[in-house]
Parts: sequence; C-alpha cells; structure tokens
Amino acid sequence: MNKSALQIERSKYQPKIPASINGATKLVEGKATESVADQADIKKLFPNTYGMPIVTFENGAGNATAKEFNVGIILSGGQAPGGHNVVSGIFDGIKKINANNKLYGFLGGPSGLVDHKYIELTSDIIDEYRNTGGFDIIGSGRTKLEEVEQFDKGIEICNKLGIKAVIIIGGDDSNTNACVLAEYYLQKKTGIQVIGCPKTIDGDLKNEMIETSFGFDTATKVYSEVIGNIERDANSAKKYWHFIKLMGRSASHVTLEAALQTQPNVTLIGEEVEAKNQTLDDVVTYIAQAVANRAAKGLNFGTVLVPEGLIEFIPAIKKLIAELNDMLAANQAEFDTVAADEKINYVVSKLSKENAELFKSLPTTVSTQLALERDPHGNVQVSLIETEQLLAEMVAKKLAAWKKEGKFVGKFATQHHFFGYEGRCAAPSNFDADYCYSLGRVAALLIASGKTGYMSSVRNTTKPAAEWLAGGIPITAMMNMEKRNGKMKPVIQKALVKLDGGPFKYFASKRDEWAIETAYVYPGPIQYFGPAEVADQPTKTLILEH
Amino acid sequence: MNKSALQIERSKYQPKIPASINGATKLVEGKATESVADQADIKKLFPNTYGMPIVTFENGAGNATAKEFNVGIILSGGQAPGGHNVVSGIFDGIKKINANNKLYGFLGGPSGLVDHKYIELTSDIIDEYRNTGGFDIIGSGRTKLEEVEQFDKGIEICNKLGIKAVIIIGGDDSNTNACVLAEYYLQKKTGIQVIGCPKTIDGDLKNEMIETSFGFDTATKVYSEVIGNIERDANSAKKYWHFIKLMGRSASHVTLEAALQTQPNVTLIGEEVEAKNQTLDDVVTYIAQAVANRAAKGLNFGTVLVPEGLIEFIPAIKKLIAELNDMLAANQAEFDTVAADEKINYVVSKLSKENAELFKSLPTTVSTQLALERDPHGNVQVSLIETEQLLAEMVAKKLAAWKKEGKFVGKFATQHHFFGYEGRCAAPSNFDADYCYSLGRVAALLIASGKTGYMSSVRNTTKPAAEWLAGGIPITAMMNMEKRNGKMKPVIQKALVKLDGGPFKYFASKRDEWAIETAYVYPGPIQYFGPAEVADQPTKTLILEH
Repeated sequence: MNKSALQIERSKYQPKIPASINGATKLVEGKATESVADQADIKKLFPNTYGMPIVTFENGAGNATAKEFNVGIILSGGQAPGGHNVVSGIFDGIKKINANNKLYGFLGGPSGLVDHKYIELTSDIIDEYRNTGGFDIIGSGRTKLEEVEQFDKGIEICNKLGIKAVIIIGGDDSNTNACVLAEYYLQKKTGIQVIGCPKTIDGDLKNEMIETSFGFDTATKVYSEVIGNIERDANSAKKYWHFIKLMGRSASHVTLEAALQTQPNVTLIGEEVEAKNQTLDDVVTYIAQAVANRAAKGLNFGTVLVPEGLIEFIPAIKKLIAELNDMLAANQAEFDTVAADEKINYVVSKLSKENAELFKSLPTTVSTQLALERDPHGNVQVSLIETEQLLAEMVAKKLAAWKKEGKFVGKFATQHHFFGYEGRCAAPSNFDADYCYSLGRVAALLIASGKTGYMSSVRNTTKPAAEWLAGGIPITAMMNMEKRNGKMKPVIQKALVKLDGGPFKYFASKRDEWAIETAYVYPGPIQYFGPAEVADQPTKTLILEH
Repeated sequence: MNKSALQIERSKYQPKIPASINGATKLVEGKATESVADQADIKKLFPNTYGMPIVTFENGAGNATAKEFNVGIILSGGQAPGGHNVVSGIFDGIKKINANNKLYGFLGGPSGLVDHKYIELTSDIIDEYRNTGGFDIIGSGRTKLEEVEQFDKGIEICNKLGIKAVIIIGGDDSNTNACVLAEYYLQKKTGIQVIGCPKTIDGDLKNEMIETSFGFDTATKVYSEVIGNIERDANSAKKYWHFIKLMGRSASHVTLEAALQTQPNVTLIGEEVEAKNQTLDDVVTYIAQAVANRAAKGLNFGTVLVPEGLIEFIPAIKKLIAELNDMLAANQAEFDTVAADEKINYVVSKLSKENAELFKSLPTTVSTQLALERDPHGNVQVSLIETEQLLAEMVAKKLAAWKKEGKFVGKFATQHHFFGYEGRCAAPSNFDADYCYSLGRVAALLIASGKTGYMSSVRNTTKPAAEWLAGGIPITAMMNMEKRNGKMKPVIQKALVKLDGGPFKYFASKRDEWAIETAYVYPGPIQYFGPAEVADQPTKTLILEH
C-alpha cells in the first residue's frame, strides 16, 4: 500500500481507552431493562434476549474467561470513519484475553457470513489499518440478515471456524438484525453470541445509553471544514449564495451539527419542517426572506445548509409522492401510450387539485423527473431530486417576483454543493479513533463475559477518555414496533433531531442573528496533533446534549 | 468575530522567513534582464521598466531607507489561501523599517484604488487575520486596471494618503497590469512605485524565478484530502466510479498535483489532450478502456480527475465552438424565429458536416445548452458545461455498446463532484503561511529599496524556509506578446503544464499502473501542527520541478 506522510505518522497513534477497562476488569450487572415502547410485543418476539440488565465494566478482579475463542466480524452498510479502529480494538481485546484467540473478517458485509467468504485478520493486516478511514479492510455490504436460512448458513461457518461470537458493526437496522440473530442462536442453543456496535455518520442511532454513533464526529468535522472554507469564500467574493446539501436521509443531525460549527445564514432542519407542517413554498419563502433581508443591508451573499432528506420531510410533498405512486401504478398501461411531451399534462390531469397545483409549481426538471423516472419497484425516485438546486431555482423565481414588487433590491447568484462521500471514509478524528477502539475493546469483554444480544457501549464521552464508562446495553431495550413495508416489525427506534433538545434549542436561539449577520465560524480541517482544545474536542451536538 | 478553536490557536503561529531578510539586509543587483520573448516589442512598450536587473536580498549592512512612507495594497481576482499573510508580512515589514509607516488597503479589488475606497490597516485589524484564509480583510475584485483615467485616479488617492507604493496581489493578468501601472507612474514621474505578488491557486503564474504562486499548495492539499477520502470510499463500497472535476480553466496544474498526491485511476491533463490533438471520443474511449480493464479484474469502481478547462483544450471542440459562435452571430435573427423544439435541428443544418456530427454526438443536455444559452456577448457558454457529467454520460454510452459486443463485462455506476470553492479560502498551510508572509516582507524591502515594476520573489522553496532566497524580478522579464480580443498585448506568459517537465513525466511513468491497480494514497487533511514530514511539505509539483 502506498502511504501518505500522514498515514505513516497516524499509524503510530495509540488510541485512548477508559481507565475502567485498562487492566483487570469485572462486570457489574445493573437492573433488568424494558424496551422503550411496545414492551409486550417485543418481549414476545425476543423471549430469550428481552429484559436483560445493562452491564458495566469496572476495575477489579476479572470475571472474564481466559479461554480460547474465535470471533467473526461484519461491517454492515455505509462507511463511517473509525470502523477499522473498532476492528483493531476487538483484535487487541481478544488477544489480551488469550493470545491464541483468532479474529475472522467476513467479506463484503453480512453476505460474507451467509456465503462463507472470510479472511483471518492477523496482526500484519490489522497494523496496516490502525487509525485509518474506510471499510476496505474486509469491505462492507447491504445484505439484510433476516431469514432463517441465512442464520443457519452462519451457524455452519461459525462451527467450522470455532467462532464463539459474531460482532456486527452497523446502523440501526443492522443492529436490529444482530438482535434477531442473537435471539435465534440462543433459541437454537448454538452457543454463538452476537454483539452489535453503533455505527453511522448520520447520527440517528443514539439514545440515553448510546450517546453517539461512531463516524458522526469525523464526518461532520470534514463537512464543517469545507463549509467553513466556502463561507470564507462567500464572505471574500461577496457575490454568491451557496446552497449546500449534506448527507442524512432520515435525520438532520449532520446538518444541525455542521450549522453549530459554522454558523451559516440559513439552515433547514427536516424534523422542524415536518413538525410545523411546512409546505415547499414556506421553505422557499423563508430562504428568500433571509436573502432579501441581507440584500437590504448590501450583503448579496450567504450560505444555506440543506439536509439530504428535506424533501421527504415536507408533509405536502409526501402526499404528492404517495398519490403519484398510486396513480401511476393504477394507470400504468395508459400512461405508457401517452406521447412523451404529453406525459406531464397527463399526470397533472390525473392528480387531485391540490397535488396538481403543487406538481405544477415544481421546476420542470423536477416534475419531469418525478413523472418519468421510476425505481425497479415502479416508485418515483425522490432521492434523485437535487434538493439544493431545486431550492436555489425556486428562491430565484420568488426573488424575481419580489423584485418587481419592490420587495427585493439585491442580486441573487448561486453555487451548489453536495457533501457526503467526502466525509464517510476520512481517517477518524482523535475522538472517533479513541471511541471506536474502545467500542471494540468493550465488545471483546462482552464476548468473554458470555453476553449476547448486547450493543457495545461507551458513555460519558464529553469527558476525557480515561473517564469514559464502558459496558453493554441489551439491544431489545432500544426497540419498539414500527411499520415497515406494510408490516409491524421490531426495530431500534431511530433517533431524530429533538426539537426540545439542547442542540436544536441552541441553534434556534441563534439562527435569527446568524441569518442577518455574517457570523461565520471557520473550523478548519481535523487536526490529529497539536493542542487538545483543537485536536480532542467532541461534537457540539454531544456537548449540548450532555 | 466568532472563532473556532483552530482559528484561535493558529493565530499564534509565527511564519518562518528566509534568514537573509532576518535582520539587516542589503540589496544585490544581478544582471540586466530581457523579456522571455518579443524583446523589441516589450522594450518599446516599457521603456522605463524594461531590462532592469534581478535583485536579491542578503544579510549585511542595510541600504534600505528608514524614511517614513505609506503603502497601499490591492487584492485582485479569485481568492487564494495566504493572501492575508502577504498583507501581514507587508505590514510587519514596513513597520520594521519605520514604525510610523502606514498601510492602506483598497477595498473590493482594483476598483478601490480608482474609486478611492480604502481603510487603514492597523495592528488590531492585521492581528485578526494572521494565518487565516480568505480575502475578507479588504475584499477582492476583478476590475482591470488598464485605462489611463484609472491610473490618474490612483495618483490622486496616493498623493492624498502619502502612499509611496502600491502592491498588487494577483494572478498573471493583474501583475501584467501592475507593470503597466509602474511604467505609467515612472513615465509621469509620480514617484509612486508598484510591486506585484504572485497569487493563484491555478499554479499557472510561475517561471524560472517565480517557483510557485501562493495558494496552490493549500488549495491542492484540500482537494487532495477530499479526493483521497472519496478514493477510500470507492475502495470500500466498491460500486462507483467517481468523476471529479477540479478548478483550473487555463492550466491543469491543480489536477496534476492532486493526481500526484492521490494516485487515482484516470487523470486527464488538458495540455496533453491538446498536444496530442485528441478528440472528445478519444478521451471518452481512454476512460472507458480503463473502466473495462478494471472490470475484467472484478473491480467495478474507480476515480477520474478532470480539469475544469478540459473541454476547451480539445481542438475539435474549440473548432465547433468557434463555428457555433460565428454561425449564431450571422443567423441570429432567423434563429430567434425558429420554434424551440426545432432549434437543435436548425443548428445542425447550419454547421459544417464535421462539426454537425460532433454536435450530434454530444448528450442532449449539452447540445441544448450550447445552442440556447449565450453569455452577454452572444457567445456560447462553454464554462457552464458540466464536464464531469458529460464524460460520465458518454463513457456509460460507450460501455453499453461494448457490453453488447462482449468487450465490457462489468457494472458502471457513477457519482460526480466538483471541487473549487472548497479550497480557495482554506487557512494557509504552513508552506503557504511562510511563503506568503515572506513575499510580503520582501515586497516591503523592495519598496524601501526604491524598486518599481518588480514582482516579489522567494525561491529555493523546496528547502527549509531559512534557506529560501529573497529578491525581486522585473515583471517585464516574464512578458511576451499575445493576442487578446483580437489585439496583440504585452502579457506575462502563462505557465501551462509542461509535457517534458518533471511532474508530468513522473505522472506519465506511473499512470498505467495506477489505472489498473488500486494504488490510492490518502493524504488526509492539512496538518498545522505535528511532525515536519506531515506538516511542512511543499507540493509534489514543486519537488519534482526542483
């Protein structure tokens, strides 16, 4: 592997871990747990893994086994910075317990377990990946572990390799599936344990016991770096409004954190748009008003942050999409016979009056795309809409109208950006490097303690790493019942931005000032060396939540 | 100003300067110079500033005046990291010469000089901007200083403020204009000196005596950071080809440097495309072949770097654009009467056979845009073409055809990115912080030495800063005659990528290996602290050139 100077230096970094798991460690069991909601349903579905206690590791005479055992790991879903450190933490953790312990990596995500594709992760390999970004050590994948046949294929390979435990590093859905697998393996008395680790840059896998998912810290710092640079450019050139879309389909945590770090003029939070039942026109008007207010002060530039999932948070758009899907499904044969340049009119003629009006108000590129492009299931493809461009276009249109009415006196020129892939595989910040490595070390201890159906947990993360609390949380405790593809399913409750939470409330108290002033903050790039105030800070979200 | 932790720490950084200008300094004059070409023409146009010697500063009994004088500065054109350090270097430099010296900043670029908009830059202001990115201290602008009326307005304000010298911080055109201004002020015996500083992230203002323009180091490091992160994502997810466009209309230095730092699979260099007289289809075939070769090895992912100006380097496209401009100008009245959905056909019917074929081969979005969107001068808008998307689309089309012929067996899914604004205002790297501050200090010395028509020069920049050589280069020495808007003009020769230069030759020797292998290097973000191997390296371009 060719390496940059930073890669070489960074490989020497020794991640910090909680003092409580440094040396002999004992496990302390807390009170029995209940699921966050739908307790009876969850209990019925998880008879063997429901109600287990929260566990904590403390210094003391160890009760962990020193027996020999092997572990298999799976990286599931989208990349997040720090995944390789979870792996090295697990490796170092199980080797400390017994030097003969082996670590296997299933290749290409959950399908590696099912298809029996794996490698043994030896110290040579592990050392190449310490403190690096990416999931390339064994690859990742999006196969869902949901079927009994898959689980049974997993038993086969675990038995063959002497694997005592499978660790699934993934987001909310992957950890839900980890729990289903744990339950099944208990029920079948296979002796195979399953442990989850909380991964996602989206930040939507968190709760009282899981303070943050790994990767969120690093990814949001990368986005904030480039947003800050763009803000400084806007404030120097003074001629563009930059519309910046950020990753995060289901929750707006990434956008909120980036806003807290960079103080842009306008920030849209999907959860608020939904809660206030805002229309697309409400959103467009809000941005246009901010542009007009700054223009009145002679400031014809600014920055707007937009979460990727915004469009799906707007209740009226959700209704339009639902009607479009139903209408197109019902009229597919006829729709196919309509001439290309008549399809838009056809769609308008078939929609309810309200939705037809909304559909007609969209820029042609968007309405055309919604009408003509369908995914393999025949659904309109909301995710292809370039929300940042859509908003910039609609704001421009509104401002042009206001100009005629004398309500807008400035210029409005735009640039647009989308940041996602830039941050998912960055080398983990000191926080994520430490947090992930610790999660891995804790996962090894949970296995040695015979636990299954637990998620590795490291808390108290706004304090120095030595003071972090290590333990395990029963996954069932995070579950509730939700409708998925028409069926009620047990799933880990997704953490959306709380409008009464610390981070949003702070943002809401400041945004009017940020909108009219140029109050930009320039966080700069992640620093791995240098003063602790620069190199070792957690996210603003974490600080404002705790 | 709200500040991030990094901004606060970074403000304490004391930039390094050449040992030769630390303490008492004497000026040493070298041999008389000639312009790089068209000597007779340049000499005639610059009778007072032609042929001046290169000057160097050395330690020794100073011959610089300790007299009181004031200086005015102008930031011209696009932002480049380090501009604020040039300003702080000038400030510290003139204050060292005489504590009563004053620095004025003309606001919003060259127009500030003409319109008499300025502020005095006091130590309070300067200290807020040390080692920061952006040009927001006084703003920048693109007004060209070319008219005698503008020059005379400049004399007025300089006389009013007691300004002995104007420093213009800009790219090749701005420095050309600085020299014209210097010549005029000499000819008019105004006593006002003019000094230039070499700025541009594009890297195309350099020659034997000006090793690099400032900002290139920082900007290319920011782009390389995010490209490296995307490469790691590509290599983890293994499902996308990422097409990445980088800033640089006239030269491909930025793209070449990013390629040297990150080793992507495919890199296009505009200068090579032009020299080899490649067609758009040649370029598309080259990329498609790289994709097919990797697919044959089971690697359905990769990265492609594209310089912003690529499309204008393709000789056939240049011809098409020229014919389109002429044809549309000649047929404007008729064209306006053609129905919207017939305009494309109309254009095709009016073009020569060769250009009509090329025009028809372009994706509809591009041909429509070329036919319908015109700039204020009536010209087609080449710069609006999203080259990275155009190439991705055309490669997909070619691969689909190859698939039918059995010549391509893989999958081809793409993502596209454009990086420009992300890097122009980043906080300067240690290299740029030192280089820019030194350029400012040297500019102050040139003024004190009574020089005009010089560019501030700091050489030997691959060595530690203490060993850097400081001096001044007569701007006329860099000039030749070029056609601009139909007229021959004296201009600083633009530095394009040399196909026989060290950086390109190294790239060319490696690119076949990088194309088929996954030889990615992940540079990571700029580090301002930490080991020198990480934090204090110049660009690969600079190292391979020297």
